[in-house]
Amino acid sequence: MAVTPDAPAPGALHGVGVGPGDPELLTLRAVRVIDDAAVIAYPATSQGESMALGIVEAFLRDEQTQVPLPLMFSPAQTPDDPAYDRAAEVIAGHLDAGRDVAVICQGDPLFHGSFIYLLERLGGRYAVEITPGVSSVMACAAAVARPIAHGMETLAVVPATAPEERLARVLAETDAAVVMKVGRHLGKVARVLAAAGLADGAVCVTRVGHPDQVVRPLTEALARPDGVPYFTVVLARRDGTAEAAA
Amino acid sequence: MAVTPDAPAPGALHGVGVGPGDPELLTLRAVRVIDDAAVIAYPATSQGESMALGIVEAFLRDEQTQVPLPLMFSPAQTPDDPAYDRAAEVIAGHLDAGRDVAVICQGDPLFHGSFIYLLERLGGRYAVEITPGVSSVMACAAAVARPIAHGMETLAVVPATAPEERLARVLAETDAAVVMKVGRHLGKVARVLAAAGLADGAVCVTRVGHPDQVVRPLTEALARPDGVPYFTVVLARRDGTAEAAA
Repeated sequence: MAVTPDAPAPGALHGVGVGPGDPELLTLRAVRVIDDAAVIAYPATSQGESMALGIVEAFLRDEQTQVPLPLMFSPAQTPDDPAYDRAAEVIAGHLDAGRDVAVICQGDPLFHGSFIYLLERLGGRYAVEITPGVSSVMACAAAVARPIAHGMETLAVVPATAPEERLARVLAETDAAVVMKVGRHLGKVARVLAAAGLADGAVCVTRVGHPDQVVRPLTEALARPDGVPYFTVVLARRDGTAEAAA
Repeated sequence: MAVTPDAPAPGALHGVGVGPGDPELLTLRAVRVIDDAAVIAYPATSQGESMALGIVEAFLRDEQTQVPLPLMFSPAQTPDDPAYDRAAEVIAGHLDAGRDVAVICQGDPLFHGSFIYLLERLGGRYAVEITPGVSSVMACAAAVARPIAHGMETLAVVPATAPEERLARVLAETDAAVVMKVGRHLGKVARVLAAAGLADGAVCVTRVGHPDQVVRPLTEALARPDGVPYFTVVLARRDGTAEAAA
């Protein structure tokens, strides 16, 4: 393709998983892609705060353009929210100008990440490259040195935000479960795990890989008058008691 | 604790996830732990061949002791196989001599890894540290730039080796599915995905992150007279057709 100064070849859109919190869980590829990108875009609150940016801070260069994407809002927000349209257009502006954009994503870009909704809007128009990341699912299991699933076991990974009846149906059939985004849904999560025979030995991991990471048994979390934060994951297995004792 | 030359402090057991195949998907922490360890242990065939070792080759030092663990055998082998006892005792010998041992694990150590069975045998006796890794689940999704799950969606990650009726029950209730270890179970996998309404747009990824990685639609894989290899993952979503077209 002929490239003129007026119409540069468009940049590439990178979705870069940066892991759940510990900067040491960045992959070598994530470090390279972040270093190569002219533009670093990151989900942030409307005040510009960003957990993802905090993870990669040490790897950014002064001459890179940093673009906060105001996408961190209520979990009830839907994928067709205009905030995603606006974020996509900001990114498109940089791509059209020939600049590679790395969208940094906590955990993995394609697993419960807002990058998914940017990809839906931009994927057909630009070259896309995804750098997978360490998921909080694996990081939480590592924090408690406990198997996620093995052999012929089935695993269900479910968001605590889903309706109780729906969670109950999915968990009834699985050998192992990981429940994400627990927060104010802790009571519901405990009920569906108990009904599914998965509550014994279940463990809560809050803010895995961050300096304030906390691990506590599900029973202990339930007894807390102030509950648990949104970034809490529950790990459960049908033979959970035996695992926890091992 | 007092340490004498006759009774050194025991070494630490490290389970180190090295990702599914591409050495660039090693985390910074995996590189550090591997570099620090006196002993590098790895699952291998009885002939000493090891996919995990291949991934980390460039990061090993000449003065490190390399210990092949002959653990790569039939998927039908059970967790109580004496091969795990023998591998655990070899590792224990190094730990007792005060040497840190890094067991390198393809993907993540605690997700369908043989490290789980070594942890069961050694976890109570030695200090254990787990370095989580990028799972093939995330790497396969990245290879096809396709969402795994988002919003309130539930995800089932199942081994194709499980009985058909069991897979059917689990998949019937999920929004998204990842089927691992497909190999000779491809026909069964296609049947249960179709019955669950998950077959449209399903994609097969074989040997993700290796130089011979292949991506093909499930329908194309089914038409191959020679089937697909064991290290094949199927990605499926209830709205798979729409995603594949996006």
